[in-house]
Amino acid sequence: MVTGPLRIGVAGLGTVGVGTVRLLAEHADLLAQRCGRRLEVAAVSARERNRDRGVDVSEARWYDDAQGLAADADIDVVVELIGGADGVALDLCRAAIKAGKHVVTANKALIAGHGSELAALAESAGVALGYEAAVGGGIPIVKALREGLAANRVDRVYGILNGTCNYILSAMRESGRDFAEVLAEAQRLGYAEADPGFDIDGVDSAHKLAILASLAFGCRLDFDAVHIEGIRHVSPLDIDYALELGYHIKLLGIAGLTERGLEQRVHPCMVSVDVPIAHVDGVFNAVVAEGDFVDRTMFSGRGAGAGPTASAVVADLVDIARNRILPVFGIPAGELADIPAASMENHFGAYYIRLMVVDRPGVMADVTAALRDAEVSVEALIQRGRNPGDVVPVVLTTHETEERAMRQALSRIGELDTVLEAPHMIRIEQL
Amino acid sequence: MVTGPLRIGVAGLGTVGVGTVRLLAEHADLLAQRCGRRLEVAAVSARERNRDRGVDVSEARWYDDAQGLAADADIDVVVELIGGADGVALDLCRAAIKAGKHVVTANKALIAGHGSELAALAESAGVALGYEAAVGGGIPIVKALREGLAANRVDRVYGILNGTCNYILSAMRESGRDFAEVLAEAQRLGYAEADPGFDIDGVDSAHKLAILASLAFGCRLDFDAVHIEGIRHVSPLDIDYALELGYHIKLLGIAGLTERGLEQRVHPCMVSVDVPIAHVDGVFNAVVAEGDFVDRTMFSGRGAGAGPTASAVVADLVDIARNRILPVFGIPAGELADIPAASMENHFGAYYIRLMVVDRPGVMADVTAALRDAEVSVEALIQRGRNPGDVVPVVLTTHETEERAMRQALSRIGELDTVLEAPHMIRIEQL
Repeated sequence: MVTGPLRIGVAGLGTVGVGTVRLLAEHADLLAQRCGRRLEVAAVSARERNRDRGVDVSEARWYDDAQGLAADADIDVVVELIGGADGVALDLCRAAIKAGKHVVTANKALIAGHGSELAALAESAGVALGYEAAVGGGIPIVKALREGLAANRVDRVYGILNGTCNYILSAMRESGRDFAEVLAEAQRLGYAEADPGFDIDGVDSAHKLAILASLAFGCRLDFDAVHIEGIRHVSPLDIDYALELGYHIKLLGIAGLTERGLEQRVHPCMVSVDVPIAHVDGVFNAVVAEGDFVDRTMFSGRGAGAGPTASAVVADLVDIARNRILPVFGIPAGELADIPAASMENHFGAYYIRLMVVDRPGVMADVTAALRDAEVSVEALIQRGRNPGDVVPVVLTTHETEERAMRQALSRIGELDTVLEAPHMIRIEQL
Repeated sequence: MVTGPLRIGVAGLGTVGVGTVRLLAEHADLLAQRCGRRLEVAAVSARERNRDRGVDVSEARWYDDAQGLAADADIDVVVELIGGADGVALDLCRAAIKAGKHVVTANKALIAGHGSELAALAESAGVALGYEAAVGGGIPIVKALREGLAANRVDRVYGILNGTCNYILSAMRESGRDFAEVLAEAQRLGYAEADPGFDIDGVDSAHKLAILASLAFGCRLDFDAVHIEGIRHVSPLDIDYALELGYHIKLLGIAGLTERGLEQRVHPCMVSVDVPIAHVDGVFNAVVAEGDFVDRTMFSGRGAGAGPTASAVVADLVDIARNRILPVFGIPAGELADIPAASMENHFGAYYIRLMVVDRPGVMADVTAALRDAEVSVEALIQRGRNPGDVVPVVLTTHETEERAMRQALSRIGELDTVLEAPHMIRIEQL
């Protein structure tokens, strides 16, 4: 029976670090009641010591160098909130684990890149590696996959994994404004970074997806195999057509075990308005896990921000305080499977295509011939309005087909001299 | 380090019992990998021994009397799937706990009625009492509240807690058919019992709500304080008006800490189509928990059925196999608070009212005078079509007001001789 306090070292006092310290202070008694022991911030580390952060850390030992936390014998767990895919954060996690300390991190890039190695280290040291905050912000999805759904074989896991992208796509749909304008607004509101590429180009979603896949399928992390497309090319015109066809456009991360191997992909998707995830809007995230016994389950909540992220960090601390330590990815790290990656060329699905064509007799015959030759079967075709000689949008949706065939058809269509822009393609997901 | 198998005794081989045995057999290796030990059905109990249930229990010891499981020294955990708010199920749980065995149950009536007592028993015996399957079917909501959101003070928890009601209301909305017709269909499809009262009158939802409230707020179960209304009186006309006003009608269970005390209520609600829970349809359930740091989180999935329920039962077994035992309601049973119940008379909210009135001058003056005298403020009023001398529906919505005032106004309105049916009232929820 452990009864002494859990002694915590917090590395990084940015938004999330401060939120975590504040949560631990505000709910000190409640957490003690829930854990049977107190959770105590014993030490902190950050770059500037004398900055007013609105929380009192004067009782905690101070380290200018985060490595000091790993070496501090009076710390049980190191909370890594420095960020970055390697460097200081990685060094700290390795050192802390080797020193026999538990580690909790919100760092998705770090886990996506080094999770398998760190898991093996942590398990052989007999310590916890908590990363609930790395995926889905405050949504307890790591716990759900590793414990709540542990009775299931999960074949597919997918979700809205980036609040910035979801905010932008939701605002574009609601306001009819274009990408650049909404991005600028999101930056003003603090929902997008000054340098937004990491979010809007899908990398952040891909980090989270790789982590979810490892957890869901019991396989080694394979971030490099994730197919990644962002949302820069989504236009108000596509959003309008999507609505007309009964879809919302969402940036999803989708991981599935297919007969072609492990498919991991991040890209804009057409999602039927009949499924709940289509209505998860704004900065909210959602993850759907499909288990063989439980069927479809969905978990949603805020995907970022000091409060939700601190909630997830402290949930991991609560587990550690309660001495609940599990294999990092649900099964022992040494038993994680190496599942071959499925090639995106072999992806099988339906497609939405928008072409900007010169409104002239014979155009549709050329387009449909290219599709026929690639054995792509058209489901619907929309040509709104007529404007002979001028440029008009033509939209078509396909039945399920292989991506290789689709690309072949699009390549030929793109070469037609009546087709004026590269074809716009968005995948239609059956969820 | 525990390495021997977890020896399980299953009491009750109905749909869920058979589903649980099947899951444990199909995923035996996967579960062993996840738990570090095997989960073994060591004994079973049911009424008829020689019935073909499609699963092989010939290796398990057989007990005609479930009490035999509690007395069997070679069983670590008893899974109670007999059902019933007391009687055999309660006796079995008490006996098993007293014999030092863990207990897992899917029995919401039992937990709602006797959870506080059983929790105290289990905690003093140092065993687990798992009831993940008692709320929200396969959704791991008990784990989410007790662990995933443990860093938060939760002020409100609510949800769609009964799949039968949600199926009926969804089908009524989609088809325009009336309650009786859709209920009959649900019975044919196996989504509603031959005797459906327990579901459609809201009692089942109330059991689950009382459990959620205890978990979320750390208070003693108080099922008797739940205000309960079912869905029998919801008409296609109300569903149509709801759509016109931008709402779906859902049977929700809502528990909240208010300045008036602990409010627990189950009744049909008008829910804005802008919130995701409005789109959780059919037999799916959903639970929303609002935490002070995490903000709004939602968890959805199938609320019943052999597979989802077995998934939840086995999730509890996995926790026990991993030796992860927690206070039953998140904090020690002896520390659960007694929070005074808020009276429904003091509920504060907005209302939808439908009156069937004789289309005659002066009617609206009488109705609005009654509202004014009770100090209820009208937000909108819809009177579609005219039909002098005949009966027409009049719909109005109110601003937020005290339920006592609303009832007083409705009582006076009901007495008007131009108002031909008792007023139809559905509460509008701000979610």
